[in-house]
Amino acid sequence: MKGSIVNIYSTILTRRSIRLYKNKKISRSTLDELIEVGRWAPSGNNSQPWFFIIIDDSKMIKKLKSISPGILCVPAFILIICSSYKGYNFNLAQREVLNLMAISMAAQNIILYAHSIGIGTCLIRSFHQKAIRKLLGCPEWIQPELLIIGGYPDQTVSAPSRKKLDEIRYFNKWEN
Amino acid sequence: MKGSIVNIYSTILTRRSIRLYKNKKISRSTLDELIEVGRWAPSGNNSQPWFFIIIDDSKMIKKLKSISPGILCVPAFILIICSSYKGYNFNLAQREVLNLMAISMAAQNIILYAHSIGIGTCLIRSFHQKAIRKLLGCPEWIQPELLIIGGYPDQTVSAPSRKKLDEIRYFNKWEN
Repeated sequence: MKGSIVNIYSTILTRRSIRLYKNKKISRSTLDELIEVGRWAPSGNNSQPWFFIIIDDSKMIKKLKSISPGILCVPAFILIICSSYKGYNFNLAQREVLNLMAISMAAQNIILYAHSIGIGTCLIRSFHQKAIRKLLGCPEWIQPELLIIGGYPDQTVSAPSRKKLDEIRYFNKWEN
Repeated sequence: MKGSIVNIYSTILTRRSIRLYKNKKISRSTLDELIEVGRWAPSGNNSQPWFFIIIDDSKMIKKLKSISPGILCVPAFILIICSSYKGYNFNLAQREVLNLMAISMAAQNIILYAHSIGIGTCLIRSFHQKAIRKLLGCPEWIQPELLIIGGYPDQTVSAPSRKKLDEIRYFNKWEN
């Protein structure tokens, strides 16, 4: 059986954005586990509007880094989560929302699972979508939405501040 | 310690959308655990652009159901995840994407954790945003984005179809 036996509550609360990684590869079978948990995220009408492109070649990582200002370190891999607009020619605004929700939920499965097996990750939104599409040879209907960089952590990160529960959770009506 | 000890890989793969619930309340301390895991999702620049409104009053559930065509059953609770636009007057398109990503990741934490403690959920996007805002008394800068209905499952659901890994995962370039 894959995966770790964990307290899932604790796994969720202790995941951090990791921005420094050891110079150590991650096996393709482990990378495939990350995609496996990603593809079991929910999506509107089970549309599964996602493609996952894993960059683990060091030359390609360097090239991608050069067009992604958000990547400040050298990760072991860069996962590009793309959403698909193939066949959607109308109601694009609604499709965009559903696609973003689906790929974000896939991303959350991935970073959570990665943390549970000792892999650190960080989400990156600062990159050039068109340049990535060109570099990888993606068709026009593919939209790179989110990068996940990752590797074995080479830092420990303390918990960032969070708004208190009482400030953001209400019962049965707006209470502010 | 809260939460269950689980194989997280298996928890992710066995979560299903549940649409029939037992007529049994869920305690407020358990509902608060759901929000607690939600608020530890990542968000761009740690903006935490979310509010969580829990509807567990049966009259309010009935009212909300009447303006939410997507809700076909009677859940034990309805969680309305809202994103906040307070203080954002420019670059709204970018803010909208980041907000949607953040609330979706919070939602994924919530439905995954709920599943791990035996609570079924289903995501609902078919509802009237303005009517919900009015019913709950939310200000204009609050955007209801996603509903999570939930309760103790009264059905078992088999796995929906998924695209195969090889169809959606590529290495280092677009391979289609």
